[in-house]
Amino acid sequence: MKFYDCTIAPSPRRVRIFMAEKGIQIDTAQVDLLNGENLKPEFLKINPRGVVPVLQLDDGTCIDETVPICRYLEELYPDPPLMGHDAKSRAVIASRTRHMEMDGFLCGAEAFRNSTPGFADRGIPGVTGVPAIPQLAERGRAGLLRFFDQLERVLSQGPYIAGDTFSIADITALCVVDFAGWVKLGLSDSHPNARKWYGSVSSRPSAKA
Amino acid sequence: MKFYDCTIAPSPRRVRIFMAEKGIQIDTAQVDLLNGENLKPEFLKINPRGVVPVLQLDDGTCIDETVPICRYLEELYPDPPLMGHDAKSRAVIASRTRHMEMDGFLCGAEAFRNSTPGFADRGIPGVTGVPAIPQLAERGRAGLLRFFDQLERVLSQGPYIAGDTFSIADITALCVVDFAGWVKLGLSDSHPNARKWYGSVSSRPSAKA
Repeated sequence: MKFYDCTIAPSPRRVRIFMAEKGIQIDTAQVDLLNGENLKPEFLKINPRGVVPVLQLDDGTCIDETVPICRYLEELYPDPPLMGHDAKSRAVIASRTRHMEMDGFLCGAEAFRNSTPGFADRGIPGVTGVPAIPQLAERGRAGLLRFFDQLERVLSQGPYIAGDTFSIADITALCVVDFAGWVKLGLSDSHPNARKWYGSVSSRPSAKA
Repeated sequence: MKFYDCTIAPSPRRVRIFMAEKGIQIDTAQVDLLNGENLKPEFLKINPRGVVPVLQLDDGTCIDETVPICRYLEELYPDPPLMGHDAKSRAVIASRTRHMEMDGFLCGAEAFRNSTPGFADRGIPGVTGVPAIPQLAERGRAGLLRFFDQLERVLSQGPYIAGDTFSIADITALCVVDFAGWVKLGLSDSHPNARKWYGSVSSRPSAKA
């Protein structure tokens, strides 16, 4: 297998943390997003959508998108389980992970892409140049502030985002909080439980991945 | 189990088609989105995010978001498989389903929510009133046109969206094409393979669900 990564980008970081938690090492190629390597013909042969992360299987099949890649790795390397141990816990973790993506990650992307000069024509990821929309940057920032409150509510009920153990939902939330830092937003004094959780998940060795 | 549905909405339709393909019948409650029933305290006890679909398990646990619900049902009712039969096919179908969501469904939502008078303060689903952004309606429409071309490329390579058999990726794509009709966009003469596929999947009995 080969993993197509970009060290600075938040989506492939989710996969890197996932692999670090499982102790997996996979042959990795860096894709230089800052210089548009993801939009060049050589990479578009790997992924016509022009995004990372991508996991290329030994038969050449390329899987993109974070959660499908993680699910494949979970099947190959089940221990420790990061996506649940039975039908119900798998469903709860998948659902909570979607919340972190839809209510958090997408807001971070809106806030960052629509306010950063170098992304003036990169309003969405991938091959299509789409102009930034300033109102969307504001919508994204407001969404991130709501997301922090949502994290606080969830984490006032238990130590992790989805149940009693660390999971891909925590990995996703951690990457959202760090992504929000790119637009200078972060957890505040009104999020004591989320801050405690953030300190804990950030200090796991995998967080450096 | 109890399924919280809204007949007119495209997301719960994905679950209804999924259940129809498997021959599953689950006790169902309609949530009247048009009259804001999803934002009332009674429903917010079921799902604090204020969205459908929701699957309530017998122990009271509520799972929201389409794919996590479908994955749970796939575990309980594995035949016929709609999410793959081995690690690789599960990964390919999950990845393609994400493409249909990110490159199609989100564009439909952008186009519809940001151009429909009754949704002037419903720019995103759920509990938060967010103003519509007219530029986003245009971005969504352009995205749907690109999505139709993407469908044509995928369906010129095989009969279904992800491999040789009908899957949740086809269900998702079908619901996107029908959702696009809400903003008066559709497949054209330049999409012969996608049109043939659409005719085929639309004529399955499950499509009426």
